[in-house]
Amino acid sequence: MQTGEHSLGELAVRFGLLLRGDPDVRVCRVATLANAGEGAISFLANAHYRKQLAHSRAAAIILSEADAPNCPVPALIDRNPYAVYARIATLLYPVPLPQPGIHPSAVVHPEARVARSASVGPLCVIEAGVLIGERVSVGAACIIESGASIGADTRLVSRVTVRPRVHIGARCTLQPGSVIGADGFGFAGEDRRWIKVPQVGAVRLGDDVEIGANTTIDCGAIEDTVIENGVKLDNQIQIGHNVTIGEHTIMASCSGVAGSTVIGKRCMIGGLVGFAGHITIADDVLITGFSMITASLQKAGSYSSGIPAQESREWWRTVARFKRLGRFG
Amino acid sequence: MQTGEHSLGELAVRFGLLLRGDPDVRVCRVATLANAGEGAISFLANAHYRKQLAHSRAAAIILSEADAPNCPVPALIDRNPYAVYARIATLLYPVPLPQPGIHPSAVVHPEARVARSASVGPLCVIEAGVLIGERVSVGAACIIESGASIGADTRLVSRVTVRPRVHIGARCTLQPGSVIGADGFGFAGEDRRWIKVPQVGAVRLGDDVEIGANTTIDCGAIEDTVIENGVKLDNQIQIGHNVTIGEHTIMASCSGVAGSTVIGKRCMIGGLVGFAGHITIADDVLITGFSMITASLQKAGSYSSGIPAQESREWWRTVARFKRLGRFG
Amino acid sequence: MQTGEHSLGELAVRFGLLLRGDPDVRVCRVATLANAGEGAISFLANAHYRKQLAHSRAAAIILSEADAPNCPVPALIDRNPYAVYARIATLLYPVPLPQPGIHPSAVVHPEARVARSASVGPLCVIEAGVLIGERVSVGAACIIESGASIGADTRLVSRVTVRPRVHIGARCTLQPGSVIGADGFGFAGEDRRWIKVPQVGAVRLGDDVEIGANTTIDCGAIEDTVIENGVKLDNQIQIGHNVTIGEHTIMASCSGVAGSTVIGKRCMIGGLVGFAGHITIADDVLITGFSMITASLQKAGSYSSGIPAQESREWWRTVARFKRLGRFG
Repeated sequence: MQTGEHSLGELAVRFGLLLRGDPDVRVCRVATLANAGEGAISFLANAHYRKQLAHSRAAAIILSEADAPNCPVPALIDRNPYAVYARIATLLYPVPLPQPGIHPSAVVHPEARVARSASVGPLCVIEAGVLIGERVSVGAACIIESGASIGADTRLVSRVTVRPRVHIGARCTLQPGSVIGADGFGFAGEDRRWIKVPQVGAVRLGDDVEIGANTTIDCGAIEDTVIENGVKLDNQIQIGHNVTIGEHTIMASCSGVAGSTVIGKRCMIGGLVGFAGHITIADDVLITGFSMITASLQKAGSYSSGIPAQESREWWRTVARFKRLGRFG
Repeated sequence: MQTGEHSLGELAVRFGLLLRGDPDVRVCRVATLANAGEGAISFLANAHYRKQLAHSRAAAIILSEADAPNCPVPALIDRNPYAVYARIATLLYPVPLPQPGIHPSAVVHPEARVARSASVGPLCVIEAGVLIGERVSVGAACIIESGASIGADTRLVSRVTVRPRVHIGARCTLQPGSVIGADGFGFAGEDRRWIKVPQVGAVRLGDDVEIGANTTIDCGAIEDTVIENGVKLDNQIQIGHNVTIGEHTIMASCSGVAGSTVIGKRCMIGGLVGFAGHITIADDVLITGFSMITASLQKAGSYSSGIPAQESREWWRTVARFKRLGRFG
Repeated sequence: MQTGEHSLGELAVRFGLLLRGDPDVRVCRVATLANAGEGAISFLANAHYRKQLAHSRAAAIILSEADAPNCPVPALIDRNPYAVYARIATLLYPVPLPQPGIHPSAVVHPEARVARSASVGPLCVIEAGVLIGERVSVGAACIIESGASIGADTRLVSRVTVRPRVHIGARCTLQPGSVIGADGFGFAGEDRRWIKVPQVGAVRLGDDVEIGANTTIDCGAIEDTVIENGVKLDNQIQIGHNVTIGEHTIMASCSGVAGSTVIGKRCMIGGLVGFAGHITIADDVLITGFSMITASLQKAGSYSSGIPAQESREWWRTVARFKRLGRFG
């Protein structure tokens, strides 16, 4: 999947890095510190792996100035080795761009508009009124329903479902199984039954958004559900109707956000976090995994409520005493 | 997506509402109190939004008698404004009914029976012995496997998977990515390995059931998994084999129910709730989000076990003391 | 769905069981103790159901020697009745093997290699370089992307997504909606934004692996994500990049494992369990449902951290006192 070779000199110039070692050394692939060999570039960004540095056989290693003296091979030095690694890996492994055009097995409505430079894969369904922008890549078996629009350079990897009137911005990536714009969960109780409340809003995704596999984002009840620029959602996340997620917020897998909650910008949310509906989370909030958020968080900071596991015997003893707190305390 | 206009007088008569204001005012769309304008009908059902009433520019507002005196525009008055809103919104935004017939790209077995009034969308697969009832709408890319049956007026939005012998009742709605009747998770341990136990039951969904996006309902091991009339399941819910969920129970996203558990009628289950297997939950039980249910609940009432998040520093101090409860208490 | 009849004598010989009763009694289907009737074989493996034994009308019952004296009908006796039941049920209900060959509606790249004995269902997409082994069954609407390989006798039930270069072993079963090899969740922070880190590893599944409906397994960042032989994953599980799950480990639904975590062999993991990244779990660990695992577990044993629900009023009182522990303790 990797393509071409690059010399360290060329990489240092292109990305503004300090080079310690032979600029003519060439790299063509990435590898971990432990398993790197000829032609492989590696990186050190997590202290956890520092002990592997001394024995690495990488052709070159991206690391910080502090780690450079201990690097046994040519080094590319930067304050943010992981970001540099991301850029070099993107250069070595470009996302394969499919040929423009519409696969003959796709079912494309004559009133859909697909840019000439875009590609639509096999067995896709593109309904009336859909707009597909320049260089968009729609992988196999995607469904894009009436009136939805997909911004330039966005990639629907494969098997993505985009429901009516959803707007997706530019340079987004949507992983397989994601469903954007299914009905929000709205029911009015009456006589001990539930009446479905029509969900007539849409979903708007900004630019540079990533949506993980099997993640679901519901359409709004009246107004739209909004995912702002640069948001990154992992797999199997559920976003309820009329939620707003602020720019550059990142959320790990299996978390759920109930309806009408507003999450701020640049938040970092762990996995298996649950948000109640109708609350507001400030900008720059960090929430550790397995937390339950039932009230608004008004200021930046770190919040938690998960309890780490213990040996079961000890745990159940603790729980028994815990429950007595409420009874006799 | 909305269609037609209706006068307040007409709406008041049709739905048995008290009208305060000009019966000739016409509405054609819904809007929130805050953003409503010309031609828009809004509603007030949640005290949270009462402060927006005075400044609303809606053409009309549905609300309770208690709120009516403060309504600055024509009012439609009822004891249950949200249910009335649901009905009026359904009138203004009818679900678009596709043309009856089978899309030429669908793969339909000659031994399937599809009602003349039903529609089967592009790239569906309908296997032998399937029965599709009157006015059923099967959206794009659904799979309905051998011997399954779909009751009248049910809508498979798109990309729904219905496995063999599943029975779905009338007037149900299944959102994209839902999987009904995948194998239950049954394995017999032997010599520290697992032998798969065939899952030969089916799934039966009653009438008026809603199934959310990417929700999964497993087939029974021997007998059937049963979802009774009027049950509403949100997105990304997992229902294990041989579970029964009683009439008109509603369950929020990301919850899971392990095998053979029986949940009563009219229960309300929050998000991220986990149920152990082989337990029984009474009728009219309410469970708040993020609760763990490991034993049967014999009587109606409200149950909880999630702990709301705190600032992390404070939280970890609390947890440390908590764990000492079990050790020294 | 069941096929043929078998005499108890034949079953006793074939599976090495002790038979008490008439060897000429014939069975053709399975049933529960409570609802079994003519021609049905049942089993007793869970003490929970022992009270149903005396009144069962099964044609025969599989049970342990200890329960045999109380069996009112012919008995097949073994130390492990549930495993015997699994084998007999597999005999009575063989998985239907589709006709070999490629459905004309499937889109198969000329450079894919599909074994003559394999079947590819309707509306599948098989890309270049794919290898599909002997007797593999690829159900409707599966996507197998470039360079992936599927081992002999594996079954992709339907609507399975297999991303590029994924390797799946022999005799695996993948349920609908599962996504194997979507991008891992890797982003490097820079200037309060996120840069995508290319995910260039693959996924390797061993032999005899079961993957549940809508379960997602991400590809590795550099090296591969690995699911070893005999692992069984339930529905809606999320496995992050570079995770390893050891042989014969079994995991219940809705659990999530963050990146680079290593889970040992023969572990048993409950539902809704969350694992932090970069930790190691020993072999033979049991984790009860709803536990949060944030640190490595170095030795076999049982671990927990979920708290069972109480009546809400009592619960909130307990939580209030609990939170004071951290403040004043």
